[in-house]
Amino acid sequence: MKNDKKNDDRVIPIAPLDRLIRKANAERVSESAAKELGIILEDLGKEIANRANDLAKHANRTTVKDSDIRLAYKQWSERM
Amino acid sequence: MKNDKKNDDRVIPIAPLDRLIRKANAERVSESAAKELGIILEDLGKEIANRANDLAKHANRTTVKDSDIRLAYKQWSERM
Repeated sequence: MKNDKKNDDRVIPIAPLDRLIRKANAERVSESAAKELGIILEDLGKEIANRANDLAKHANRTTVKDSDIRLAYKQWSERM
Repeated sequence: MKNDKKNDDRVIPIAPLDRLIRKANAERVSESAAKELGIILEDLGKEIANRANDLAKHANRTTVKDSDIRLAYKQWSERM
């Protein structure tokens, strides 16, 4: 119920997240667990994407490249 | 090319990752950028899933629940 609103602007589908948890040798995975992981990964993804976009602009590019994502992730990890 | 092997066991599709980066106001997004973000998020997802599975087992459950994911993420964040 309370996830309905959050789901509206979520982009990662549930099925692959469920599979990701099953790969960690989980016997069973609740649907809410897969959703929760989706919320967490999307939040992290948004933070990295925002940083990557700033880095691309800083390099006078309109295209976000993999090198922007890599540096954004490095900076984000070091921040914690 | 060098991503081919990594893609074999990747589960999150590229399209939603591309959308996630576009949402950060990126004008254009290279395909390799979306792939790179996928690799990063899946690695994080696996770490959280492994912890969540340990926590479920520790609580004598065979089902991974959202509370396992939440505590796993909390512990993972604090670890860094």
